[in-house]
Amino acid sequence: MENFQFYSPTEFVFGRDTEDKAGELVKKHGGSKVLIHYGGGSAERSGLLGRVRTSLEKAGVSFIELGGVKPNPRDTLVYEGIELCRRDGIDFILSVGGGSVIDSSKAIALGVPYSGDFWDFYCDKAVAKAALPVGTVLTIAAAGSEGSGDSVITKEDGGLKRGTGTDLIRPRFSILDPQLTCTLPAYQTACGATDIMAHVFERYFTNTTEVEVTDRLCEAVLLTMIKETPRVIADPNNYDARANIMWAGTVAHTNIVGVGREQDWNSHGIEHELSALYDCAHGAGLAVIMPAWMEFVYRHDPLRFAQAATRIWGCQMDFGNPEVTALEGIKRFRSFLHSIGMPINFAELGAREEDIPALVDKFGIGDGKTGGFVHLSAEDITEIYRIAAKAEL
Amino acid sequence: MENFQFYSPTEFVFGRDTEDKAGELVKKHGGSKVLIHYGGGSAERSGLLGRVRTSLEKAGVSFIELGGVKPNPRDTLVYEGIELCRRDGIDFILSVGGGSVIDSSKAIALGVPYSGDFWDFYCDKAVAKAALPVGTVLTIAAAGSEGSGDSVITKEDGGLKRGTGTDLIRPRFSILDPQLTCTLPAYQTACGATDIMAHVFERYFTNTTEVEVTDRLCEAVLLTMIKETPRVIADPNNYDARANIMWAGTVAHTNIVGVGREQDWNSHGIEHELSALYDCAHGAGLAVIMPAWMEFVYRHDPLRFAQAATRIWGCQMDFGNPEVTALEGIKRFRSFLHSIGMPINFAELGAREEDIPALVDKFGIGDGKTGGFVHLSAEDITEIYRIAAKAEL
Repeated sequence: MENFQFYSPTEFVFGRDTEDKAGELVKKHGGSKVLIHYGGGSAERSGLLGRVRTSLEKAGVSFIELGGVKPNPRDTLVYEGIELCRRDGIDFILSVGGGSVIDSSKAIALGVPYSGDFWDFYCDKAVAKAALPVGTVLTIAAAGSEGSGDSVITKEDGGLKRGTGTDLIRPRFSILDPQLTCTLPAYQTACGATDIMAHVFERYFTNTTEVEVTDRLCEAVLLTMIKETPRVIADPNNYDARANIMWAGTVAHTNIVGVGREQDWNSHGIEHELSALYDCAHGAGLAVIMPAWMEFVYRHDPLRFAQAATRIWGCQMDFGNPEVTALEGIKRFRSFLHSIGMPINFAELGAREEDIPALVDKFGIGDGKTGGFVHLSAEDITEIYRIAAKAEL
Repeated sequence: MENFQFYSPTEFVFGRDTEDKAGELVKKHGGSKVLIHYGGGSAERSGLLGRVRTSLEKAGVSFIELGGVKPNPRDTLVYEGIELCRRDGIDFILSVGGGSVIDSSKAIALGVPYSGDFWDFYCDKAVAKAALPVGTVLTIAAAGSEGSGDSVITKEDGGLKRGTGTDLIRPRFSILDPQLTCTLPAYQTACGATDIMAHVFERYFTNTTEVEVTDRLCEAVLLTMIKETPRVIADPNNYDARANIMWAGTVAHTNIVGVGREQDWNSHGIEHELSALYDCAHGAGLAVIMPAWMEFVYRHDPLRFAQAATRIWGCQMDFGNPEVTALEGIKRFRSFLHSIGMPINFAELGAREEDIPALVDKFGIGDGKTGGFVHLSAEDITEIYRIAAKAEL
């Protein structure tokens, strides 16, 4: 196990009707003039925004609003948010939505006290020294942004998708009401579930040895997702299944299951180019990419893949041929994704094989390699896209 | 799943030689005049206290010291600590030791800003409003106090053992260096491992349904302990096994594995009377009590015990007779405890069957019942002590 620091100071308030505590929580965590940041009209139509406003008013907290965050949130709206906050002396950002809204909120939070361009933090030109506090009311179990110090933003001009991470933007509180996720369409629910599982697998495949405790914690989250996801696809109003998925999604990304071990994250990087080019859902892109990545790299450590296959997917271990077990686990992962309605190849995702050179080019590693479980060259990434393009059950 | 709040703001700094960061961490978390609180001479002899002092000096932080904390920490030393802190204007308590030292530190932290008797918080006479900040350098993986808001203190006069809990005494930081646990004797190591496992089982046996995610997380910690504990008993210097146990111990008690579900904790209460009367190690007392408690209550929900038996202990499920599987799991737990050197009955612990009426009397529920997985009367507790007294492999 490697040395590590683990710091997750977010106050999680979980359960039915917890959104009514938004006002008191903003106040408790020092906010007095709030920007409510949200996405489309569903938060308004569902009555959620109304409840949040009422809660803020009851707590004596003033607020302004900025909606319009899209999936794969854009820099343009971030600039607008920064201006608004500066103009009105906003001291707290309350994010009402899913990962995209939270990531956009975090970008605004970083930008307000910074004299330069907030994008500097996303292209490693500057290290953040301050940020406005952020709180969240989560509406989708997926990105884990409600419990992380990470944010991913897409540049409108050119579609460049980049991330940043700092403890400064860890939410002060996150309100998690599983009821809010019951109205999500099956496709979005499945995309979220795939993202959660991917966050765990990115941590699971590691070259660090002697990490039983985090291996087992990763498996715990994955076993939960395998049990609960089909239940919510079959019955969207199953509160308990929604609740298990929601807490699993947060646990998956606070990093408590990933500390002390080298992590991978190449599937996320390879997928980001897909969602940037086709504006597809991140989870759907991951469903296509991650099993393909696994098929490309499993020979690097067949026993780790066999461990996943037996402990997570319930495969019988073939002690004479661990690679057979390893491949069986990957196959079951892809079948599972298909069973919950996810695409498993380029055609189903709406991606085109002829774009692969452009995707690899945009990934932008040139003659270098990306780190992780297996270091990948541009050629390797091309091959992973090719496997993904043609994948079948 | 039930509604819950989860808040674990402690900064965990984990790994080799992390104790050298004590000074910078105290400073980062606002301390300038520190009380170093510790137990016996081993912290001095091992050089740990010296390293901590050097680290504080380097960070420009002044300090005084108070040693002498015993297992089952006493109120008398807490009073002494409170006086010292007030006299010298101490603004931070740095705990160097195991759970007893941390619990004593937390009690001092609560007592300093309080005008009444600190014991008020432990007998539910008052609710804490303030506390000095506490940081820890952990030397035993066991109590989980490094990541919890709990503290248990024993009254010297009469041996009453009582606990309190508040977010105010959650450590600001906890330094976890697995190397520091390598010098622990096998018996203490096993006591710590038993305590960690007990913390998870207290959460695992619940009447709350639909808690797959926390069930799986509990199982993850237990599977880790089952793998790693025999390795450190066989080879005390196995750093990686020590590291897995240390992180498992913290995860077990931040409550991330126990949120949203009713918990039990009767085994802890029943054990506390043993360690208060005989001054035995808490973990050793739990090794005697917890399997006995399980044997007394398993009929309340045989399928939950069968789940534990199959998922945690690897038993084959007897679908025709789930109770057989349930009992097999309890048997394997007791055998495991015996295999790591723990006592399994009163004689091995140094307890006396004839004291049972006195133990039950001190538990003090009269004609009432204690809550939890199964509500227990004084008669039930008597029977659990009797089962524990005579237990065999």
